[in-house]
Amino acid sequence: MMERVSGRRGRVPAPDDERPATSAPHRVILGIDPSLRGTGYGVIRLGNTGPELLAQGVLKCPREWNRSQCLVRINRELQSLVSQWQPTVCVVEGLFYAQNLRTAIVMGEARGAGLAAVGSAGLEVYEIAPRRVKQAIVGHGGAAKIAVAKMVQRLLGLPKTPEPDAADALALALTFVHEQGRCSPKALKRI
Amino acid sequence: MMERVSGRRGRVPAPDDERPATSAPHRVILGIDPSLRGTGYGVIRLGNTGPELLAQGVLKCPREWNRSQCLVRINRELQSLVSQWQPTVCVVEGLFYAQNLRTAIVMGEARGAGLAAVGSAGLEVYEIAPRRVKQAIVGHGGAAKIAVAKMVQRLLGLPKTPEPDAADALALALTFVHEQGRCSPKALKRI
Repeated sequence: MMERVSGRRGRVPAPDDERPATSAPHRVILGIDPSLRGTGYGVIRLGNTGPELLAQGVLKCPREWNRSQCLVRINRELQSLVSQWQPTVCVVEGLFYAQNLRTAIVMGEARGAGLAAVGSAGLEVYEIAPRRVKQAIVGHGGAAKIAVAKMVQRLLGLPKTPEPDAADALALALTFVHEQGRCSPKALKRI
Repeated sequence: MMERVSGRRGRVPAPDDERPATSAPHRVILGIDPSLRGTGYGVIRLGNTGPELLAQGVLKCPREWNRSQCLVRINRELQSLVSQWQPTVCVVEGLFYAQNLRTAIVMGEARGAGLAAVGSAGLEVYEIAPRRVKQAIVGHGGAAKIAVAKMVQRLLGLPKTPEPDAADALALALTFVHEQGRCSPKALKRI
């Protein structure tokens, strides 16, 4: 994985690169793991020596906040992250588990508030299935959350393991880097 | 219903009305029925002779649009509706039916994109259960969609029956008017 996401295999466009702009790799990538009370985010840059961390964290909304207040916060904070770091692509989880319809709707609302923000700023948006993320980061699709977080820490050379939601978001961004380097990036679904 | 939503029962604040601003009734109400490809909306004003239509319609997004494009459209169009008509409250459906988790997430995304827009503009947001809407508009909770639409047409004196999604949104707004006139508006859940 370290090598696959390192950017050493000719993905840095030379000044005279003839490829149209649309085929150039994304170099600043935002991963998000939206949920009403704790949206994880991670921004990485594809540097010459591999991916580097720009920002990561969890947008927390206290239990006593109304749902609509949380949605406003998710939307605004993502707008401000995009404006600060200027990513050109956003990655979220694809098909995922929800306990019931109610939970699915609330998770969907958090996603919608976030995706409206990044979409409005012109970012391309992709989904990657959680299994593919674990496979790309740890090597097998059934990996535990903590194993993903530890590997994210290692890949980005972080002094400590990120919070679980932030680690998931960073794992999405790292997997995107991996996938965009492949000839046929099957795991990426543009949404 | 006509009389209950007519505003004739002392809800028009007199200039010397001593009630704090927070207890004043909302006079311009936005109802929304969000869905990815066809979000219904309706704006009504509580006039001296009852509720009047300000705007209604369905925000359609073609099948070939990406999901994130639709979310951006929903978000922007609602922002612009709010800015044009200046409603102070937004009403959406509460617990509703979805065929499966996937559908629930996609419906949730549309809701989140919409609610982030109205919430950012400072509107209060309420949910009303679909059954309560049918009960308030038609008189029984199991009413057919067309019966709701026909009654919405009658209550607002419209020349023709609104499209189903717009009718649902208008029905939400009318039910809100009805509920805010009650001593204990149990059907309203602030979210």
